[in-house]
Amino acid sequence: MKKLVRFGVSLDHHLLDDFDRLLARKNYATRSEALRDLIRDNLVGQQWDENKETVGTITIVYDHHVHDLTEKLTDIQHHHHRLILSTMHVHLDHDRCLEVLVVRGRGSEIKKVADTLIATKGVKHGKLTMTTTGKGLS
Amino acid sequence: MKKLVRFGVSLDHHLLDDFDRLLARKNYATRSEALRDLIRDNLVGQQWDENKETVGTITIVYDHHVHDLTEKLTDIQHHHHRLILSTMHVHLDHDRCLEVLVVRGRGSEIKKVADTLIATKGVKHGKLTMTTTGKGLS
Amino acid sequence: MKKLVRFGVSLDHHLLDDFDRLLARKNYATRSEALRDLIRDNLVGQQWDENKETVGTITIVYDHHVHDLTEKLTDIQHHHHRLILSTMHVHLDHDRCLEVLVVRGRGSEIKKVADTLIATKGVKHGKLTMTTTGKGLS
Amino acid sequence: MKKLVRFGVSLDHHLLDDFDRLLARKNYATRSEALRDLIRDNLVGQQWDENKETVGTITIVYDHHVHDLTEKLTDIQHHHHRLILSTMHVHLDHDRCLEVLVVRGRGSEIKKVADTLIATKGVKHGKLTMTTTGKGLS
Repeated sequence: MKKLVRFGVSLDHHLLDDFDRLLARKNYATRSEALRDLIRDNLVGQQWDENKETVGTITIVYDHHVHDLTEKLTDIQHHHHRLILSTMHVHLDHDRCLEVLVVRGRGSEIKKVADTLIATKGVKHGKLTMTTTGKGLS
Repeated sequence: MKKLVRFGVSLDHHLLDDFDRLLARKNYATRSEALRDLIRDNLVGQQWDENKETVGTITIVYDHHVHDLTEKLTDIQHHHHRLILSTMHVHLDHDRCLEVLVVRGRGSEIKKVADTLIATKGVKHGKLTMTTTGKGLS
Repeated sequence: MKKLVRFGVSLDHHLLDDFDRLLARKNYATRSEALRDLIRDNLVGQQWDENKETVGTITIVYDHHVHDLTEKLTDIQHHHHRLILSTMHVHLDHDRCLEVLVVRGRGSEIKKVADTLIATKGVKHGKLTMTTTGKGLS
Repeated sequence: MKKLVRFGVSLDHHLLDDFDRLLARKNYATRSEALRDLIRDNLVGQQWDENKETVGTITIVYDHHVHDLTEKLTDIQHHHHRLILSTMHVHLDHDRCLEVLVVRGRGSEIKKVADTLIATKGVKHGKLTMTTTGKGLS
């Protein structure tokens, strides 16, 4: 059951003015929502630091004409199938593909899969994005 | 047509030893591949700084039980349908969803979509990942 | 004159518990202080994005035995003396020095000084840290 | 004794052109120097990940009129005097000060000092910059 609590924050009115302007630009409806986002983002960083079970996305851009590349990427993914929840493929143009993988596991395991995919010859660019299962981030 | 060129890099043998150890851990097959990745990653950062046409992924984690949230997120996405190439949805557990969007446009446009989705009440965590169309990163 | 205002933040009690634990570990005395820091850090990022007058520190580590290096670094600094407020030098060991420069100016000017120092042959490592004049961050 | 080794890197000529343009803008004299910097920066990240002995700078901006703040900051620093090599103080304006500390120790120890200083009430902004002793980065 969700239980909301409320507490007061005090700050200088100039600081609050600047914060309100930033919120407006980022389309936040309320200060509480913006502050909850700042808090949660800090906690997500913490979960990764502590190598807890978590979720990440791995994004790679590659040229599918490179010989054997698609096979290699598929092999690597199957080797780690236990960690990979799902993937999506986008044809960026005649040559280039973008693939996003949603990966769940300990931070260190996810980083290993990301390193291996990004290091594969023919992968032009790759990045790991650290997100969360959302647990404990009510 | 791809045309490979070759040039020499000189460095201290201790530095090279340390670099080789790092490559082994990250599963790089050759030094050239690792250096190309470092170069490309720098160029991708540059493309975003210069607000050129580029590609990003937006990852959000949210609770689909929050009233109207799914509708709101869908509305925002349709409003920006010209920029959003594709989306993938993963059911993390009974309550939580993860959604990844592949977005193409100028860096500033992509950031605006990301800000709006992340600011929506009920979205627990969101991140923009800056990648590339791969153009000019042969 | 400083004028404090107060407003209420509501969040789930689990989220608040996790946040309180994080604060304790980071030695924050109150939630308000921690939230003010999160807010200010966001505003500092904004000031740099908008290329306003700001303050940064540039840290470089180098080997003072490299021929002419000290002269070159001094020349570069004098060329930008209008931007550089102060520098500090630490002798890390027999060979290596660390130098920190406090630099004030537009973000783009500060980045240019940092790029030039870091690119100088013999500088082993260099980093720009984006901070603030503190104006508007009451 | 420094011993230079040389090896060849092969890449597409378009990628090399783009890299050369980036180097020119950042004032690098040679490709080797730029690549050595990319390599060293990766290794420095690794040293921090592995919690080895390393060097960081902590930058804080604060208002010296805040009651007892200077005393508190001095107390914290003395408590960690074994880690703090040196500090520099800049008077930014009538109210605000910037202080940079050069800190040497394990990554986790340095982070703890940074967290404590940044969390102190009256410190407007603080940042830890991860650099290196330069050892093994010939």
